[in-house]
Amino acid sequence: MNIPKRKNLKRVIIIGAGFSGLQIAKKLRRDKYQVILIDKNNYHTFQPLLYQVATAGLEPDSIAHSIRNIVKNTKNFFFRLANVYSINTCKRMIYTNIGELDYDYLVIATGSITNYFGNKNIEFYSFPMKSIPEALNLRSLILQNFESALLKKDIKERQRLMNFVIVGGGPTGVELAGALAEMKRYVLPNDYPDLDVQHMNIHLLQASKRLLDGMSEESAKQAYKNLKELGVTIWLNCLVKDYNGKEVFTEKNKKIDTVNVIWAAGVKGALIQGFLKDDIKKNRILVNHYMQTIRYKNIFAIGDVALMNMNPSYPNGYPMTAPPAIQQGNYLVNNFNNMNFFLDKKNISPFLFKNLGSMATIGRNKAVCDFSCFKLKGFLAWIIWMFVHLVSLVGFRNRAIALTNWIIQYFHYNKSVRLIIRPFHRKKII
Amino acid sequence: MNIPKRKNLKRVIIIGAGFSGLQIAKKLRRDKYQVILIDKNNYHTFQPLLYQVATAGLEPDSIAHSIRNIVKNTKNFFFRLANVYSINTCKRMIYTNIGELDYDYLVIATGSITNYFGNKNIEFYSFPMKSIPEALNLRSLILQNFESALLKKDIKERQRLMNFVIVGGGPTGVELAGALAEMKRYVLPNDYPDLDVQHMNIHLLQASKRLLDGMSEESAKQAYKNLKELGVTIWLNCLVKDYNGKEVFTEKNKKIDTVNVIWAAGVKGALIQGFLKDDIKKNRILVNHYMQTIRYKNIFAIGDVALMNMNPSYPNGYPMTAPPAIQQGNYLVNNFNNMNFFLDKKNISPFLFKNLGSMATIGRNKAVCDFSCFKLKGFLAWIIWMFVHLVSLVGFRNRAIALTNWIIQYFHYNKSVRLIIRPFHRKKII
Repeated sequence: MNIPKRKNLKRVIIIGAGFSGLQIAKKLRRDKYQVILIDKNNYHTFQPLLYQVATAGLEPDSIAHSIRNIVKNTKNFFFRLANVYSINTCKRMIYTNIGELDYDYLVIATGSITNYFGNKNIEFYSFPMKSIPEALNLRSLILQNFESALLKKDIKERQRLMNFVIVGGGPTGVELAGALAEMKRYVLPNDYPDLDVQHMNIHLLQASKRLLDGMSEESAKQAYKNLKELGVTIWLNCLVKDYNGKEVFTEKNKKIDTVNVIWAAGVKGALIQGFLKDDIKKNRILVNHYMQTIRYKNIFAIGDVALMNMNPSYPNGYPMTAPPAIQQGNYLVNNFNNMNFFLDKKNISPFLFKNLGSMATIGRNKAVCDFSCFKLKGFLAWIIWMFVHLVSLVGFRNRAIALTNWIIQYFHYNKSVRLIIRPFHRKKII
Repeated sequence: MNIPKRKNLKRVIIIGAGFSGLQIAKKLRRDKYQVILIDKNNYHTFQPLLYQVATAGLEPDSIAHSIRNIVKNTKNFFFRLANVYSINTCKRMIYTNIGELDYDYLVIATGSITNYFGNKNIEFYSFPMKSIPEALNLRSLILQNFESALLKKDIKERQRLMNFVIVGGGPTGVELAGALAEMKRYVLPNDYPDLDVQHMNIHLLQASKRLLDGMSEESAKQAYKNLKELGVTIWLNCLVKDYNGKEVFTEKNKKIDTVNVIWAAGVKGALIQGFLKDDIKKNRILVNHYMQTIRYKNIFAIGDVALMNMNPSYPNGYPMTAPPAIQQGNYLVNNFNNMNFFLDKKNISPFLFKNLGSMATIGRNKAVCDFSCFKLKGFLAWIIWMFVHLVSLVGFRNRAIALTNWIIQYFHYNKSVRLIIRPFHRKKII
């Protein structure tokens, strides 16, 4: 990989430039370590706003930022654009599409991928929304559907194009359903005067008995109410069984005709080959209180891919969201910078997640926030949601562009970027 | 195509939503005509700024605008996303990928495509820059090249990735060369500290004896001087003969090793099947003073695709740029709205192009403007260039976003959107 080793410096390889990996890459002391960051993209993605890219609210440049631009302290720092295929824990090597590299310490921050729970049909036909290209595909799909619907004389065929099924009632599903409903209300009637947009149906299917499982009962009810008002059809206790590209089937033998199934029903750790079976649990890498893997003292895992199940409040591990990832990144880099960590753990306190709250937006002036001491809904919650997301974006420019977009959209009731730049070619339905 | 005909209205089909086609679609009287606009994209592209998309200065959403959003008077107006394959002038029909349609009047505003002058090798291996996807491909290519160059141990191979050859010294070539040179100076050294960016070479090859053929000698000299200062190697009287994907050959047996040839050497009319040989000249459709085709009274051609060679100042037709296209669109729609046009041409003055001037930018604070009474260069010309391009963008939002980007870039010396969202996969070199 063309990176010369420095004799007096230990080499740390970080795999993944998500929320957790970036913290380490930015803050790791360059006088103690040679830092190598590897990611399959040359940009960091702010995943919480992917749904706005999919629904033509923001362009990718607002929620993505060049990694080479984020990590500015380039002394003893190397970024490589690569896919990591596997690791060899004995030889202390990683293997990638651009060659191999040895490490002294390895930090696995590979995040998560869409979980189809083993259903190959759903994986093949439905649309995920975990990356920017996937969000752009979804946007193209939505817009192409309406262009196609205009041409259909067969009512059933037209309806199939205009039925949208979102599977998963977590924050992603709720936010996406709300954004689609607002497109239906404010944007599409103007864009398609010769199409009866009222025939567009948005179904939100949730397997459990309520929306927003990770949030309070109160917020879940508010989200349910707001989505209903926006015209979203919500199905609770509704587990999807199969999908053939034309019809989605639920466990209770319900059937919805649609060519648009958006899969927001779950994620699983993005694992790397090379671990033993015991090191993995629930598709995540088991770690101790110090984010260290159970078997290898020089390998760490943080963020979505790490499973720390020793905190009694989180018996299934911390939620696979940004806040634990950021906190774990900060925690680990502090330990790294304090070299004693590797000699004597007694002086190091274990990682503890501080839950600062959670939030979800449903649409214009509509959001829900759960904080430890109070809950909020409506306009104020929406303002807080926007503020928190805006300041979380990387870089002044991204914030400025996103804010400009949001202000214009707020006053124009418009989603401005409904451009089919790269048409999405549907997989053939056999 | 599922568009019912209205008995009392004549049907006008406009093919192409570029500068000229849009004028007609927006302004044609809906009480006299049923208006159908067809384009292969659902957006209008502001082509003069494509080079900024290619060099990571702007995102596509700043220079593209949804056609359905531009044409707001939707009474008796239909937009269809389609590729027009051919026309039948006797049956008065057009044939597209989404079906056929008959017309009373047809306006061909299909614009232009890249002209490779018949060289299949160049067409296969070089990069055009006439559309947004092409500009995005070019952006990905530039960024991917530097990531690859990092990994090359062979000096010749690395150099081949870092040599950029731009063919064509018109405004596109000049602006692209300037933007690349500024990337080399301001952006890449920070992004690639472990690569010697000084090895990046930018060659601008021009077949004629000066740059900017359409502009004044004075402006051409200034552009030459500015580009030289920015480190661009300019080759005049240098006609490209061939390109094999690795080496570009000129007529004087010069050879440059490069995998990056950007073809900005010419355009030709985007013709549609169905015309007779005599109707076409120099790859453009011949029209009379009224933008009417020679043979068919109900078919008109405007913009780049139309050749009006009866103005003695422009014996080869008007330049294939935005100003004639916009003026022709406005001219023709006025004639259409004045129904007498079809009965009595004596009351209609022929189209005359008003040349308001031309301009090109080279880089920060550097541009040249030719107006009829005076010429400008330097900072003031640059400010005028920016102002003219900004107000020419469609819609308040596009202007706001582009301006925000430009201001941030001006103060940060940075190109912010260097994200490889859709990696470009190079054609295999055999």
